[in-house]
Amino acid sequence: MAGLRRHSVLAVVVLLPLLLSATSDAAHCSTSAQGSSLVRNISELPQDNYGREGLSHITVAGSFMHGMKEIEVWLQTFSPGTYTPIHRHSCEEIFVVLKGSGTLYLASDSHGMYPGTPQEFSIFSNSTFHIPINDAHQVWNTNEHEDLQFLVIISRPPVKVFIYEDWFMPHTAAKLKYPYYWDEECLKVSRKDEL
Amino acid sequence: MAGLRRHSVLAVVVLLPLLLSATSDAAHCSTSAQGSSLVRNISELPQDNYGREGLSHITVAGSFMHGMKEIEVWLQTFSPGTYTPIHRHSCEEIFVVLKGSGTLYLASDSHGMYPGTPQEFSIFSNSTFHIPINDAHQVWNTNEHEDLQFLVIISRPPVKVFIYEDWFMPHTAAKLKYPYYWDEECLKVSRKDEL
Repeated sequence: MAGLRRHSVLAVVVLLPLLLSATSDAAHCSTSAQGSSLVRNISELPQDNYGREGLSHITVAGSFMHGMKEIEVWLQTFSPGTYTPIHRHSCEEIFVVLKGSGTLYLASDSHGMYPGTPQEFSIFSNSTFHIPINDAHQVWNTNEHEDLQFLVIISRPPVKVFIYEDWFMPHTAAKLKYPYYWDEECLKVSRKDEL
Repeated sequence: MAGLRRHSVLAVVVLLPLLLSATSDAAHCSTSAQGSSLVRNISELPQDNYGREGLSHITVAGSFMHGMKEIEVWLQTFSPGTYTPIHRHSCEEIFVVLKGSGTLYLASDSHGMYPGTPQEFSIFSNSTFHIPINDAHQVWNTNEHEDLQFLVIISRPPVKVFIYEDWFMPHTAAKLKYPYYWDEECLKVSRKDEL
């Protein structure tokens, strides 16, 4: 309860431009009257691409959706050739790859003016890796024959993502996207409740 | 397409070989000279039962082992009839059930003198649930025909566990187990390094 209020207050204070989607049903947000049950069937949880072709995102356990305060879990699938934006966030992030393969691009020098040319790492089914706090990174499904699917775990939810157009964009020019795509609907509900 | 993907979700992790030989050295602890690589094959990570028959534990991404500060992920398997102790911890915890079925026992009244009779919840493959901070709980593999396997995500690692002998033991009598079984080896190494 207090956590939900805190998120709402943060959103109001930061005065971010909100690009709220016109989705109709927000019954799965924890601020709704229905709430959510303790044990949930992942196959029945809301799934969407949030306007990004080739993406499937499910919030398995989330801040807005299920009242989590310290950790959040997503199940994501990227079709062949699709990828995340180049981005960074001030939280820890762990990936557990369930299916497929791809490439992680990681620019570890967060003390420079911009990310710079990233290192490349092969990722594969049954692999795990984590992204150091604030390091710019991008994950690609570079396997043209198979979907890339992983569980993503983040700390400090809800996530605040800074997006880069390329690896040489200055850190200070990266664009904050908050709420992130899958949090938009629930943040809208949360704000309504405050008014 | 996305729907089909979702249903096959977690099958891959289930295929992990679970009978890996236990390693005796501490080369996998992050304080060791060897450290650990960024992308790790989960099938090659150290696995042990830590003296608890029927358990298989793998630290997928850990505080002592991999330098995580805010989140930690375990892959655990319980053979039929085995279970966790009745316990609580001051952190958030999310379970993602990959295989099998069982029962979650949860005593939500942390304001009483003792946990008291717990509520029972059925858990099953492809389900998820989370344990509220400090609520006493226990997970049983009550399916006599199949292993119960899940990913566990905790905040505030390394975990500090308070163990109860039964549901009516006073909260103040619960016994702190720290470091927890799978952290003992690395904490020993870490301590040595400090001296």
